[in-house]
Amino acid sequence: MSDIDMIAAAAERLSGHVRRTPLLTSPFLDEIAGRQVFVKPECLQHTGSFKFRGAWSAISALDPDLRVRGVIAYSSGNHAQGVALAAKMHGVPAVIIMPSDAPALKIANTRALGAEVRLYDRAGESREEIGEALASDRGLTLIRPFDEPLVIAGQGTCGLEIAEQAAEHGVTEADVLVCCGGGGLTSGVALALEAKAPGMRVRPAEPEGFDDVKRSLQAGAIQRNNAEAGGLCDAILTPAPGQLTFPILSRLCGPGVVVTEDEALRAMALAFLRLKIVIEPGGAVGLAAALFHGDEIEGDSVIAVASGGNVDPAVFRMALDRLDAA
Amino acid sequence: MSDIDMIAAAAERLSGHVRRTPLLTSPFLDEIAGRQVFVKPECLQHTGSFKFRGAWSAISALDPDLRVRGVIAYSSGNHAQGVALAAKMHGVPAVIIMPSDAPALKIANTRALGAEVRLYDRAGESREEIGEALASDRGLTLIRPFDEPLVIAGQGTCGLEIAEQAAEHGVTEADVLVCCGGGGLTSGVALALEAKAPGMRVRPAEPEGFDDVKRSLQAGAIQRNNAEAGGLCDAILTPAPGQLTFPILSRLCGPGVVVTEDEALRAMALAFLRLKIVIEPGGAVGLAAALFHGDEIEGDSVIAVASGGNVDPAVFRMALDRLDAA
Repeated sequence: MSDIDMIAAAAERLSGHVRRTPLLTSPFLDEIAGRQVFVKPECLQHTGSFKFRGAWSAISALDPDLRVRGVIAYSSGNHAQGVALAAKMHGVPAVIIMPSDAPALKIANTRALGAEVRLYDRAGESREEIGEALASDRGLTLIRPFDEPLVIAGQGTCGLEIAEQAAEHGVTEADVLVCCGGGGLTSGVALALEAKAPGMRVRPAEPEGFDDVKRSLQAGAIQRNNAEAGGLCDAILTPAPGQLTFPILSRLCGPGVVVTEDEALRAMALAFLRLKIVIEPGGAVGLAAALFHGDEIEGDSVIAVASGGNVDPAVFRMALDRLDAA
Repeated sequence: MSDIDMIAAAAERLSGHVRRTPLLTSPFLDEIAGRQVFVKPECLQHTGSFKFRGAWSAISALDPDLRVRGVIAYSSGNHAQGVALAAKMHGVPAVIIMPSDAPALKIANTRALGAEVRLYDRAGESREEIGEALASDRGLTLIRPFDEPLVIAGQGTCGLEIAEQAAEHGVTEADVLVCCGGGGLTSGVALALEAKAPGMRVRPAEPEGFDDVKRSLQAGAIQRNNAEAGGLCDAILTPAPGQLTFPILSRLCGPGVVVTEDEALRAMALAFLRLKIVIEPGGAVGLAAALFHGDEIEGDSVIAVASGGNVDPAVFRMALDRLDAA
């Protein structure tokens, strides 16, 4: 089970390899939110999202004899790129199982990061069967995207940095809005802050229509989304919180905050204008919650994790359109 | 005259107030450049450009009895915002003299940062006369944009960070491409690297048609641009290098590198796609030189300063268009 000691150990393994992202501020965002806003831009992490932390944590902890045989992951998005680069930097093979209808750019990017991409037909093939056959043939280790203690511990290193950086600004109490899919980042950050900044409280942020975590926290049991996909926030659309992450979320998090897609796009536009960072819709829901749902938030300061920036130009243009209208 | 001791003293004054921007990399940019590329994203600095460093350096060094009366600057751009915020953070008044035809957003931003904006009519009024009258009436101190030792020293702190951060990556020799207008940033970085990373060589980067620094270095004497304004790279369009900056540039810099506007836009697009940062055309010429003028650059590594990110959505869309075409 993940705990602060595992996170501290992950931080040691990540040191010198992970990027320590800064903590950004803007008086213009403070004005909108009505309180001091801090943004942790994990879009500036290697491969453009926090996923590199968890991937590095898991791969670096493998027994060397096992690691040398390689790793495997199912993903068409940020986790795939994180695993691909972390494996490449360890000099070991990575196989990524992606649907054959994944965007060509994502497939190309994953290959360019050194991974072998195995495409499968969503309709006719089971990715688990393909993956298990490949893993057993070649002795590959599966790196799960969130329900894996070493991955949660790696994401938790983001929380260690938040605790240290906020303290440098004199902030020890704040709601911390974390973009939440399966809950790997959210639970890791919550564990880190429980130990290092107990005055802070993590709040999962989700897009409308995919508020499984908020409802799960309310119900005290795992709830699923009705839809499995769709909408702009693809990076954080998982069917339900994980078996390992949910108990952590349930013990440590405050209520979830749900934002609209339009609010996510407006948060992206303000991040462009005021922070000069590129964030994707799923990576913007935390900032959108901080900026536009102030009545649901407590305290003089709020911290939002901008979890990723892998956004297509067409979607980014939709965000820029919100500026012209403003 | 600026020197490494002044830069070190500026770094002490800036500590805890300036943002230490990270040093970013992407294997995709390395591939394009044919060597290892490091980007210093000063767009992530307070107010979206390196100008905050010089402004803080100058204001923090003022005699307190003088400082309390306030500061004044002529600028419609990044220097204005840097001076406005640095003055606000010192709790002293700032007056910014701007042309009445400056973009409304820039005027609003400068006011929102706490400055008093005095508009003047470019055709009928002299900004210097207005500024001198205001300065003498109120005892304001003029903060020059580049030809001022304390400002050069402040910009030089960016060079100290580059030397430290590159060494962490094992890099002690590299061409360092710096977006160059009046030469404040370029000369400050060159002085810092002369002392802290003597294996590095600063190269001024400029847009086509505004290559006064490159020509001045070639001629060994200050040359002026034919045009005074125009084009997308407005942030770095100054008529000529400064009286204080040129001797430093002349002593320490390698040859200038000139890029096209299209190359600057393509560099902005790649920074969006691969680094998740927003840079303006004038802030992209260093990266454009690193990526697209490799035959003019020496060594296995190149470092580009992305000096600012204050770009209008319409211009950013032009950059995104380059991605669709690629």
